[in-house]
Amino acid sequence: EGPVAVDYSSLLERDFHNIADRTLEHLQERIEAYGEDLEVDGFDTDHAEGVLTVRLGSMGTYVINKQTPNRQIWLSSPVSGPARFDWHEDKKAWVYRRTKAKLMSLLEKELGELLKADIDLSE
Amino acid sequence: EGPVAVDYSSLLERDFHNIADRTLEHLQERIEAYGEDLEVDGFDTDHAEGVLTVRLGSMGTYVINKQTPNRQIWLSSPVSGPARFDWHEDKKAWVYRRTKAKLMSLLEKELGELLKADIDLSE
Repeated sequence: EGPVAVDYSSLLERDFHNIADRTLEHLQERIEAYGEDLEVDGFDTDHAEGVLTVRLGSMGTYVINKQTPNRQIWLSSPVSGPARFDWHEDKKAWVYRRTKAKLMSLLEKELGELLKADIDLSE
Repeated sequence: EGPVAVDYSSLLERDFHNIADRTLEHLQERIEAYGEDLEVDGFDTDHAEGVLTVRLGSMGTYVINKQTPNRQIWLSSPVSGPARFDWHEDKKAWVYRRTKAKLMSLLEKELGELLKADIDLSE
């Protein structure tokens, strides 16, 4: 995979920050609750200035971060690798153009398999 | 890009943590110094439990993190996208198999262009 073709979406920077921050805050809250309920070994989440980290001990680390120049949320998953999500206003969802996957659905599926639990991240 | 083919390197987990932690600490120290010297707007670094974040304001955010199951360091670059580095004991360097790029050289080149400065990250 070569250099990224920067894809400026039409979101205003202010709107991007509002939507993306809400997404990261929501994700941290929900994933944190699952981690505590399920007593995952080595579990830890951290959210600071646009970077959400979810550590799952020996299962690896998720990083979910704002990439402001691109108006995207970038995901680094120990299961599926990297992915970049654009906000779809009509779907009210972050969507990975290449696979049409939604950020929430992808995380629900992967975390569900890793934690052997039914994970629901919907708002 | 589909699911990641997990590539277990031969590094012991203990050795992986030692080498990778030293790399992340070194990178933070050096990049932090450049950010202060060059008075980069919106500059900030953060290193906690295996995740180093380098925020360059409107230029975007670098995330450099340990991915323990794979014995790799993963990079998320606002310039070149994602890359995964394995430790090469003979070269004493983190190398991206697909392009043969070294982590340090890649960061020196990209940060040099972004910050319009000569960046040296060698130890």
